[in-house]
Amino acid sequence: MSAQPSRSIQFDDQGNLRHFLTIDALPAETLVQILDTAESFIDFGLREIRKMPLLRGKTVVNLFFEPSTRTRTTFEIAAKRLSADVINMSATRMSTTKGESILDTVRTLEAMHTDLFVVRDHASGTPHLIADHLPSHVRVINAGDGRHAHPTQAMLDMFTIRQKKDDFSRLRVAIVGDILHSRVARSQIHALSILGAREIRVIGPRTLIPTDIQSMGVNATTDMTDGLDDIDVIIMLRIQRERMDGQLIPSEQEFFNRYGLTEEKLRFARPDAIVMHPGPINRGLEIASSVADSSRSVILNQVTNGIAVRMSIMARIMGGSGR
Amino acid sequence: MSAQPSRSIQFDDQGNLRHFLTIDALPAETLVQILDTAESFIDFGLREIRKMPLLRGKTVVNLFFEPSTRTRTTFEIAAKRLSADVINMSATRMSTTKGESILDTVRTLEAMHTDLFVVRDHASGTPHLIADHLPSHVRVINAGDGRHAHPTQAMLDMFTIRQKKDDFSRLRVAIVGDILHSRVARSQIHALSILGAREIRVIGPRTLIPTDIQSMGVNATTDMTDGLDDIDVIIMLRIQRERMDGQLIPSEQEFFNRYGLTEEKLRFARPDAIVMHPGPINRGLEIASSVADSSRSVILNQVTNGIAVRMSIMARIMGGSGR
Amino acid sequence: MSAQPSRSIQFDDQGNLRHFLTIDALPAETLVQILDTAESFIDFGLREIRKMPLLRGKTVVNLFFEPSTRTRTTFEIAAKRLSADVINMSATRMSTTKGESILDTVRTLEAMHTDLFVVRDHASGTPHLIADHLPSHVRVINAGDGRHAHPTQAMLDMFTIRQKKDDFSRLRVAIVGDILHSRVARSQIHALSILGAREIRVIGPRTLIPTDIQSMGVNATTDMTDGLDDIDVIIMLRIQRERMDGQLIPSEQEFFNRYGLTEEKLRFARPDAIVMHPGPINRGLEIASSVADSSRSVILNQVTNGIAVRMSIMARIMGGSGR
Repeated sequence: MSAQPSRSIQFDDQGNLRHFLTIDALPAETLVQILDTAESFIDFGLREIRKMPLLRGKTVVNLFFEPSTRTRTTFEIAAKRLSADVINMSATRMSTTKGESILDTVRTLEAMHTDLFVVRDHASGTPHLIADHLPSHVRVINAGDGRHAHPTQAMLDMFTIRQKKDDFSRLRVAIVGDILHSRVARSQIHALSILGAREIRVIGPRTLIPTDIQSMGVNATTDMTDGLDDIDVIIMLRIQRERMDGQLIPSEQEFFNRYGLTEEKLRFARPDAIVMHPGPINRGLEIASSVADSSRSVILNQVTNGIAVRMSIMARIMGGSGR
Repeated sequence: MSAQPSRSIQFDDQGNLRHFLTIDALPAETLVQILDTAESFIDFGLREIRKMPLLRGKTVVNLFFEPSTRTRTTFEIAAKRLSADVINMSATRMSTTKGESILDTVRTLEAMHTDLFVVRDHASGTPHLIADHLPSHVRVINAGDGRHAHPTQAMLDMFTIRQKKDDFSRLRVAIVGDILHSRVARSQIHALSILGAREIRVIGPRTLIPTDIQSMGVNATTDMTDGLDDIDVIIMLRIQRERMDGQLIPSEQEFFNRYGLTEEKLRFARPDAIVMHPGPINRGLEIASSVADSSRSVILNQVTNGIAVRMSIMARIMGGSGR
Repeated sequence: MSAQPSRSIQFDDQGNLRHFLTIDALPAETLVQILDTAESFIDFGLREIRKMPLLRGKTVVNLFFEPSTRTRTTFEIAAKRLSADVINMSATRMSTTKGESILDTVRTLEAMHTDLFVVRDHASGTPHLIADHLPSHVRVINAGDGRHAHPTQAMLDMFTIRQKKDDFSRLRVAIVGDILHSRVARSQIHALSILGAREIRVIGPRTLIPTDIQSMGVNATTDMTDGLDDIDVIIMLRIQRERMDGQLIPSEQEFFNRYGLTEEKLRFARPDAIVMHPGPINRGLEIASSVADSSRSVILNQVTNGIAVRMSIMARIMGGSGR
């Protein structure tokens, strides 16, 4: 679970953020600036007229090689509220397509004077590859690449935690479920580390926890009772039902019995612990409905914050752009 | 063919229309107001620049669980002319998906601060269900649910009738074809009743007329000669070809012979009778080309009016909205 | 390879261009005006804010019966930069669908007060058919119809040639590959003839060159060495891989060996010859990567120019429109 540091490509020569590809090499200061700017967009989201001219006359391309209506929609809404024109490209590319063809597609779109690519792909590293081969005035945001990273999701999670809990240095955070295959977990762990969380714990079946997880400064356990003890923030991950083949997870029922977050298990955590989930939730698999819909759940706050955080990231990386 | 009265949920505490789900429980006054407002949008549609700022900074979600390029496009055009941002979600949901998952989808979209859901679903009641579970500032328009209702279609039909015929109290209206499966017919019957049409008649094969139709104040006949006698407005319904399996309808040719609107059959109606169809028309099945393209046909007027009526409904229900 | 002259339908009574369907019957003056106007949009594409109000309040319908993300996107971007509302209709129509149904679809869309149809279809003549049956204030642009024409592609090619080479009367232009099935080649030949190119040459396997090509004032050869001799502009065509069945083309490798543009073959042309391709390129089939990515290649310039040229055409044909 090691990551290629990408600090250099993410910043320009003046030290301005120009791409948002991965969190692991970013300084805490950058993360805090993004969260602070997002605060102002939260107020904006409550206004009568949710439209500001920041990206007027700019073109944002949603380049989703892996289908995702939900995440695509959040970027589309965020970009349109900033007055950008949005082009949706739900390209399905063959697994045999060579990297060079992706670059041809992107170079062609760039030649149309587009300004920002929001990229999702099943292969790790595609957004980085694209950023590496585009002219310097074009921006790239990683909207999820393989098992590698989902940095905007992690940022909206950090925003939600800060909104509810204030100081990271006092927080113990548990991430529960399929850690091994989760780009969300990876990005969350990086962000929590950088922001100085007191403890990061992962909980899940042994088969779904990376063997080298301790090297990331993370504690691991297979038991929910131990795992949730003294925890302030519980992040449930989404289980991909296609992994429910008996190899990695015995059965849906058994997974829910051991790791599904019920009101009963929630009692192991701190009494004011909050419950998070990147969505869409599988009720009765990762989480009981009574917990998902309770006052402890901040799942819908995450969605609301996701718009503000994505607007913040777009505004920041587009700030210094211009042909 | 009974319907759950939905007056309460469609209005707020001050008596303002906030959702548009079904026509059956609406007062005549509300329908007339919608038609009157639509008049002004007809003029607007003839302007050089068809853009007004009424919904600027608002987000309209087209949530179509049942595919329909045509109806979706009319709502998209109507919303964009009011300056709204439009998000198209052509979600195909599994028939096994539980109602709860739809609500999770909608709650997620609402958390993004979207303002209006335009909903189509193959299941009756879905728009109502959604309206019932959203915060009070969010609006819902039913764009067709199962066999239940298609209220915006009925309103554009009423607009077209009023445009050509003026006073409902003197009008005899015939609805022809597959009444049983038609949400359009249901909504038209409600609207015509509320607006005080002199007579509503349905004409079709016995197998395609609901047995309790008289309880809606409607006359029924299986014969076109009798059925069209003295009629001012003829509404042809679209036949779903997948019902042409010999069970309900013997054959396309026989259906056309008995119920297809030809110039010959049109002579049974009043000499100034107009011909309507919700579209898309099946030429040579429900209607002869010579009738569809004649001066008696107002089918394309219905389309034009559909934009104005949908703008009117959007403007009305969004009028009092605001977070 | 004969074409129906369409001059009359493309102009209104005052001699203004109102549709853009085919190049073959257009006067040189019209082509030059389009190219001249496109110049100003090139500068526009380099501005910070790429948005002008020329088509504000107008609705452009992308009516693509044949899928094409790339071309559709260029029209979408061009229309949005002119502030139009864009409706994407990626209609897949059955091959059995009768022409009348297309006209019903288009008449319905027109009744919604849409202003411009951008039409692509696998059948030659569909854009012409549509233009012929719409009211006079509605405009049509051909975005590729069967093997007939792709006039906006040819215009962006002419723009690119003029940008790099200035005077057509001194230019020898070679078009290489599958001439027979190429609507791009047809439109390019018409445009080059009208603009007075010194020589037009086509190069390809005998099976892929129309037998009556000389009647278009074009020289033909099956040999690249002869064909590229003294050539100023090389236009490579895209090979449809589905034609690689051994009937018309022996094999990909053999095609590349004989007709693929390599650095070696490029030496047969003039030392300052430019290399063009409508895209997307098949690297290693029509063209070697080293040539596609070289300073001789203007393939990405073509893409950039495509936006400007399409804006120019839209602006020109919409100039005199108005209900």
